[in-house]
Amino acid sequence: METNHRYCVIMCGGVGSRFWPFSRTNMPKQFLDFFGTGRSLLQMTVNRVLPHIPHSHIILVTNDRYRDLIRTQLPEIPEENILFEPARRNTAPCVCWAAHHIYALDPDASIITLPSDHLILNEQEFLRVMSEGLRFVESHDALLTLGITPKSPETGYGYIQRGLPCADDPDVMKVKSFTEKPNLEMARLLLESGDFFWNSGIFIWTARSILKAFARYAPEISEIFEPGEKVYATPAENEFIDREFPNAPSISIDYAIMEKASNVYMIAVDLGWSDLGSWKALHEASPRNREGNVTQNCKLLAEDCHNSVFAVNGDKIIVASGLDNYIVAENDGALLIYPLEKEQEIRRVVNDVRTRFGEKYI
Amino acid sequence: METNHRYCVIMCGGVGSRFWPFSRTNMPKQFLDFFGTGRSLLQMTVNRVLPHIPHSHIILVTNDRYRDLIRTQLPEIPEENILFEPARRNTAPCVCWAAHHIYALDPDASIITLPSDHLILNEQEFLRVMSEGLRFVESHDALLTLGITPKSPETGYGYIQRGLPCADDPDVMKVKSFTEKPNLEMARLLLESGDFFWNSGIFIWTARSILKAFARYAPEISEIFEPGEKVYATPAENEFIDREFPNAPSISIDYAIMEKASNVYMIAVDLGWSDLGSWKALHEASPRNREGNVTQNCKLLAEDCHNSVFAVNGDKIIVASGLDNYIVAENDGALLIYPLEKEQEIRRVVNDVRTRFGEKYI
Repeated sequence: METNHRYCVIMCGGVGSRFWPFSRTNMPKQFLDFFGTGRSLLQMTVNRVLPHIPHSHIILVTNDRYRDLIRTQLPEIPEENILFEPARRNTAPCVCWAAHHIYALDPDASIITLPSDHLILNEQEFLRVMSEGLRFVESHDALLTLGITPKSPETGYGYIQRGLPCADDPDVMKVKSFTEKPNLEMARLLLESGDFFWNSGIFIWTARSILKAFARYAPEISEIFEPGEKVYATPAENEFIDREFPNAPSISIDYAIMEKASNVYMIAVDLGWSDLGSWKALHEASPRNREGNVTQNCKLLAEDCHNSVFAVNGDKIIVASGLDNYIVAENDGALLIYPLEKEQEIRRVVNDVRTRFGEKYI
Repeated sequence: METNHRYCVIMCGGVGSRFWPFSRTNMPKQFLDFFGTGRSLLQMTVNRVLPHIPHSHIILVTNDRYRDLIRTQLPEIPEENILFEPARRNTAPCVCWAAHHIYALDPDASIITLPSDHLILNEQEFLRVMSEGLRFVESHDALLTLGITPKSPETGYGYIQRGLPCADDPDVMKVKSFTEKPNLEMARLLLESGDFFWNSGIFIWTARSILKAFARYAPEISEIFEPGEKVYATPAENEFIDREFPNAPSISIDYAIMEKASNVYMIAVDLGWSDLGSWKALHEASPRNREGNVTQNCKLLAEDCHNSVFAVNGDKIIVASGLDNYIVAENDGALLIYPLEKEQEIRRVVNDVRTRFGEKYI
């Protein structure tokens, strides 16, 4: 098993406002110690792959504003492994640049690409499937994704429909279709069918296969990054990227490649996974007390409170009474007390805060 | 007018848990900038008397643990004017010691004794009544108190019943009786009668009159402080007090003297007064927005919130939704979200916090 050709790309440039004010522009979700374990989600993501992939083969793609945070949280990652995007362009340009960078280091490289801010409880199963997937793409021209066995009719996730299993590895199945986030009725049907899986955003391929797919399915992106072939993984890379990267369209890897390519495969897996994409997802993924309350980083004295999330930064206590289905989140001068059922309003609220009180609190 | 015989005693040793966590053991209510004006309640109390009484004639009685706070907040008060009680013994021993101390400085002194943590909006009226009261006690052996014209049937205040006006100053009336905090039905009757006034806890007398009253009505206190006659306002005072003060019974000036003495008088006055003794009293004494919300020291973005108090320390913002009749208070690592109607539970809650999480948060 040629493990020295294996790389991991972790996308950690995201800025989210869904967890405001627990997360902030200068401290987004992936850098937070979400579960009070002493490790951020990003650090947990790195640690998860380390048994099979060394620090020297882990590539981080991020934004320049998080340079110090990354150096502090991950001092073991070599400086040259951190790719700083000069502009925000969603995941497709990010994946394309990282693939070119790794291809320049090793044209026979295989890559697992990971979001930096998801939860995976079943780390042994993750490592097993990662190995199986890397083995598969190393011998097939395949774009592989992990499909999570769904537990409930979630409306917050995209779904992947499985097709026929491969002859030489029945764990790997052809992907028949991608489905956008469904409504509840549709989500129930998808769940019942047994053929649909949650789209994890975890991808496995070789550098060669994904670059071929970009050339074929997303030429408008490929044409931007191909002319840099001679500079990737050299001192001239940054100058090239700073000039050309902003010209790339802003588009996700799902739209640009996965929904178009004919060689897309999946492995169905039960990882104890959550994208932690909302307070509700966080509430469901977290240990709850008898009243259904979740605490993040705080001590709680609750009376007559149910199904609420209490998340603060630092060694604090909260005394609360009479809150049902609430979010209580506090960080660095901003406190949110908001019904969990209305969490889709939080983006608007954050904009209102920006308008009325300025960037300081965002 | 012999203003150089006039003194002010401010009692500022209190520790309250009713405003926890906005107030804390190491930062009780009187030291807080309650209204975001840049001045604490204690500083406001001192400033209120300054037009008529200079810093050199203002005596503070407090507890040793607040030494630094007082030096910081009131650097103009001479060090020798600050009396540190070696034990907590309610107001009667405090008043007796302060009277002896002032009598030693000036046997012809007249004194206004003030709580440090009340609100008085009508400062001109306060100064007028203070002058009138001091003038009255300077020519009568009288114990004078201010009775606040009641606005509503408050159950949180004690009441004073007025008797006949004095022949030579009809603003001053004999006090007929003191009434404990009444229930609502009784409070309505008291209000209707027109004869009852809120007990403000503001007292005016000469050092000579109050010491005479102690000798007559509270000999058990008088006997403790009289033997120190030679040491008050000398370097030997502290040693005497440290030894004898703790032997005094813990009793209020109302119980020890005012309810017993036959020479008690009142002036009825409308001061825009509140004892700020509860979150509800604070809510009523504070400017409210259209939805009835009060903010202390914070910026608020509220949706569908009514009749709530939001009090935090420092330059913070709160975003809240769906809170009716709530207290939201935060300070130094502790956050309280509690129904206003249940505020009498807060003392118990503070004890629970102490038991479960330690003194750090109290």
